[in-house]
Amino acid sequence: MNTRKERISILGLGAMGRALASALLEAGAEVTVWNRTSGKAGEFVARGAREAPSVEEAIGAGDLTVACLLDDASVRETLAPATRHLAGGTLVNLTSGSARQARELAGWLDGYGVRFLAGGIMAVPATIGTEGAFILYSGARDVFDRAAPVLAPIGRPRWVGEDPGGAALYDMAALSGMYGMSAGADHAVALVHAEGGDVETFRREVLQPWMEQMLPIMVAGADVAESVPEEYNPAMQATGLENILSASGEAGVPEDLAGHLRASLWRMRRAVG
Amino acid sequence: MNTRKERISILGLGAMGRALASALLEAGAEVTVWNRTSGKAGEFVARGAREAPSVEEAIGAGDLTVACLLDDASVRETLAPATRHLAGGTLVNLTSGSARQARELAGWLDGYGVRFLAGGIMAVPATIGTEGAFILYSGARDVFDRAAPVLAPIGRPRWVGEDPGGAALYDMAALSGMYGMSAGADHAVALVHAEGGDVETFRREVLQPWMEQMLPIMVAGADVAESVPEEYNPAMQATGLENILSASGEAGVPEDLAGHLRASLWRMRRAVG
Repeated sequence: MNTRKERISILGLGAMGRALASALLEAGAEVTVWNRTSGKAGEFVARGAREAPSVEEAIGAGDLTVACLLDDASVRETLAPATRHLAGGTLVNLTSGSARQARELAGWLDGYGVRFLAGGIMAVPATIGTEGAFILYSGARDVFDRAAPVLAPIGRPRWVGEDPGGAALYDMAALSGMYGMSAGADHAVALVHAEGGDVETFRREVLQPWMEQMLPIMVAGADVAESVPEEYNPAMQATGLENILSASGEAGVPEDLAGHLRASLWRMRRAVG
Repeated sequence: MNTRKERISILGLGAMGRALASALLEAGAEVTVWNRTSGKAGEFVARGAREAPSVEEAIGAGDLTVACLLDDASVRETLAPATRHLAGGTLVNLTSGSARQARELAGWLDGYGVRFLAGGIMAVPATIGTEGAFILYSGARDVFDRAAPVLAPIGRPRWVGEDPGGAALYDMAALSGMYGMSAGADHAVALVHAEGGDVETFRREVLQPWMEQMLPIMVAGADVAESVPEEYNPAMQATGLENILSASGEAGVPEDLAGHLRASLWRMRRAVG
């Protein structure tokens, strides 16, 4: 690596792509942006980015191309006409997708001589570049070693192995954890709201500190489906879950919001045997 | 209040009752314990507690009686023969139950001239007496003001209103939030396990920091069922949820563990309209 600025091209200026561009510009990188529809680059051009009129030109302008698009199909569609330009270069895919998709994309790009790193962004747009943000990467270690310092401004880089599907597997599993947290918080607030409680006080002074206290215990206790954390009495937990379900029904909380309770109840019943 | 030690009687020595007795003894309170079946008090007697042979004697030995039993039915059953001894005294019920049960218990005890405080323990046995633990109380403010300093060693006391059902409502709702977190963490670990990932590394280096980062965002975003957090693109979130569901199915993660994903998906679809 030489001492000139790293040139990074970003494909996709959705909410996440914009957050990436912003963090990289902030860190002084030389950034080129491209978006399928125009009119999204102005703010970044004003901050020194270059707007590429085509994917091919975007790829040609960067030492590293970062794709942050809607889904796997849009990555294929965007890159297909430009594989010739990618040959010999490096693509980092930060588009959400499954492990299988990442493995297939790696194989497809390998056929064109493209070095590939699959990423999983463990942040939301608002937390990109903040202390908590981290990015999972999987693929060849030397590709990671070269890309990691360049992409560090978006979030702490963490390599999870050679298997291109590794980052997506961990990303998707962690998202599932977040959705559980979200479903639980939604249900909690819906129940307090339905019963005429003070939602703001509840959220701030009960739900937040309680979930903070329980998070490490729940993560440490999470295991293959049949087991429950050691200090749990599964029969008593099952009773508690049934109580919450019936209280929610009486309060008129929509049944569809209770899925996380049924998942936990299922686990407790399995543990009771 | 005089300066002699407060005398507290604890009915019930399950895991939680034992944690309460331990924290109160540690703080120097004068503790009497009673349990339906004998043989659980030895450890506490060795630390200076008195074991009462009957509920009546336990109630007579305390300025404050704390019930921490299995469920609402066991509270009724335990107190029914002893209401005469409770008359003019104070009962703090820390047994898990619903808001309706707490209101009915308050009415029943009021008929016997018992001062009543309903509580919700926002801790697990292992966190009783630690910095994060807090206890919700509802009922007459003056009863709370008298009991709060006495019970502070088990967890920070917080009064949530005169309605005896308030503590149970917030407790139950917050538990629902915890179960969501737990269901999400379980599913996450099951997915990584099923796909042959490194569960320990995932749990410690991905799931824990990710859920810590997302917790305040999920709690702030939790609202009545129809809305989603501002920075969410519900259509994109729905696609992500469907991806996780199909990847989980392919991996062989039991369908029952996916309830939290279906709850979130339902909400996203409602938001898309």
